[in-house]
Amino acid sequence: MSRYVPSLELIDRAAKGNIQAIGRLISRAEGGVPEARPALAQIYRNAGRAHVIGLTGVPGSGKSTLVAAMTARLREQGQKVGIVAVDPSSPYSGGSILGDRIRMSDLANDAGVYIRSMATRGAMGGLARASLEAVDVLDLGGFDTIIIETVGVGQDEVEIAKASHTTIVVSAPGLGDDIQAIKAGMLEIADIHVVSKSDRSDANRTIADLKHMLTLGAAGAFKPEWQSPVLGVSSYASEGFDALLAAIARHRDVAFATESGKKRQQAIARFRLLKTAENLLSERFASSVGPIVPGFTDQLQQREGDPYTLASELLATSFK
Amino acid sequence: MSRYVPSLELIDRAAKGNIQAIGRLISRAEGGVPEARPALAQIYRNAGRAHVIGLTGVPGSGKSTLVAAMTARLREQGQKVGIVAVDPSSPYSGGSILGDRIRMSDLANDAGVYIRSMATRGAMGGLARASLEAVDVLDLGGFDTIIIETVGVGQDEVEIAKASHTTIVVSAPGLGDDIQAIKAGMLEIADIHVVSKSDRSDANRTIADLKHMLTLGAAGAFKPEWQSPVLGVSSYASEGFDALLAAIARHRDVAFATESGKKRQQAIARFRLLKTAENLLSERFASSVGPIVPGFTDQLQQREGDPYTLASELLATSFK
Repeated sequence: MSRYVPSLELIDRAAKGNIQAIGRLISRAEGGVPEARPALAQIYRNAGRAHVIGLTGVPGSGKSTLVAAMTARLREQGQKVGIVAVDPSSPYSGGSILGDRIRMSDLANDAGVYIRSMATRGAMGGLARASLEAVDVLDLGGFDTIIIETVGVGQDEVEIAKASHTTIVVSAPGLGDDIQAIKAGMLEIADIHVVSKSDRSDANRTIADLKHMLTLGAAGAFKPEWQSPVLGVSSYASEGFDALLAAIARHRDVAFATESGKKRQQAIARFRLLKTAENLLSERFASSVGPIVPGFTDQLQQREGDPYTLASELLATSFK
Repeated sequence: MSRYVPSLELIDRAAKGNIQAIGRLISRAEGGVPEARPALAQIYRNAGRAHVIGLTGVPGSGKSTLVAAMTARLREQGQKVGIVAVDPSSPYSGGSILGDRIRMSDLANDAGVYIRSMATRGAMGGLARASLEAVDVLDLGGFDTIIIETVGVGQDEVEIAKASHTTIVVSAPGLGDDIQAIKAGMLEIADIHVVSKSDRSDANRTIADLKHMLTLGAAGAFKPEWQSPVLGVSSYASEGFDALLAAIARHRDVAFATESGKKRQQAIARFRLLKTAENLLSERFASSVGPIVPGFTDQLQQREGDPYTLASELLATSFK
């Protein structure tokens, strides 16, 4: 049996909360080899209890500091918290970034917190799959709340943040216009808006701007059961967290118990089904077209053919 | 005949440089409807003369200002310049962003410059396709240099910048660590590194850091014919552009005339071929699976099945 095939015993240990087993299974999810799929499939079927929070925001919005502070407070409530960081700038990954290391290190020594950075490069369409499978593993492992942090730029990253029960979009005062503009596409996915660094004098302006934008139409997916609040939070001054945690708990009830919550869960399942099918399709395609690609590439490069005609021929050849 | 089918006469006018015809054809590329494909295929076969520059960098690195200044200088050399901005924060898009509007407006009134912002939302995997087709249209229309500007965060955006003869990665002094870190993945695709805002006192540090990183292994794809230079440029002080334009011209020669240049063009053709095939495959898949998806989604949401098994069944049903 290949070393990529997780044993039933490994899954069993993960289900009992064994951190080493959880870590190894997430590595299998990251690896993405077909041999690991039966195990990941089994994990999926046995997961489904945790409250999954997607948290996203542009670079510099203070996502990681916020996650750390939220996690500390969820711990005070006795919850086990898993963090999946799909963010190359995340300070959890260690190595190149110092930022909030000190605050995170308090959590890193807490057995009720599990932090995992996902590799964003090379995943090639598999990033959403691997991240959501990491969530499944943590869910199986008994973590009550799982936060997926993504950098909030790029289609994949926004989709991942959206594939959660509760999506939090973080904004910060004082970022440049060109950074804020990227965010525009993210606003509509927020169930909760957080304006970080709310101790700063320009935060009120950001809060007011956001509220104004929301009146113009961008809104969460839970109307009429839910109106996305705009909450100022300062990790530095330790302000606003009571309101934030209360909003998260309220939204959790909406997500798990209402008709629109159910619709959202169906949309997530649909996203995951089609994403998986697309990945399987690409994989099958890649393995079948290999030998005939070079000839087609030459024709395309010489402009003797065009992308559509050649790609259609390639598909016809590989799927006949 | 559908209004989405571009006429031969429209292509003919675009080939003669008619700006209105060029704009309409790019809109067809953006629309992505199958009816426009024969025309876009024909345009592809007749394009291939322009020097295509991919320019990318993190938000706040000063990409648009640099593009404007480069364009002004390329115009002085008598070149026609096309700009395809795949960047929601681009000031060219008008509306929400003011930034460099004044400088861009000088170019906007110049018939030898064509600026087009591509919609990044909703393209769903078609963004690379639409952007590269826009380049084809401008190429057909007689533009000598075509600059594709992308925001440089997100797989798609980086891939688009890479699918060019010459890739420029822009860094800026003084951005936060968390922003710079995103850039790490971009460094290896650069044929030319530009450090913008080189009039600032901290620019030398950024240049030195970049050079150091390059010695650690990140390098362009043209060794041994090409070593990616690191060039300081100040749009504000109008410094460094002679060296930048000279590097672009030198790299153009490498890209068009050397063995590694040919390999790069083959890699681009391969990327385009497989991307197109993937898009066609997804499209075919989406149109065939529609009716059976809801049942599968329900099973997945109830965790009665897992993503792999259900996705495989979905594929088997739709491709049998």
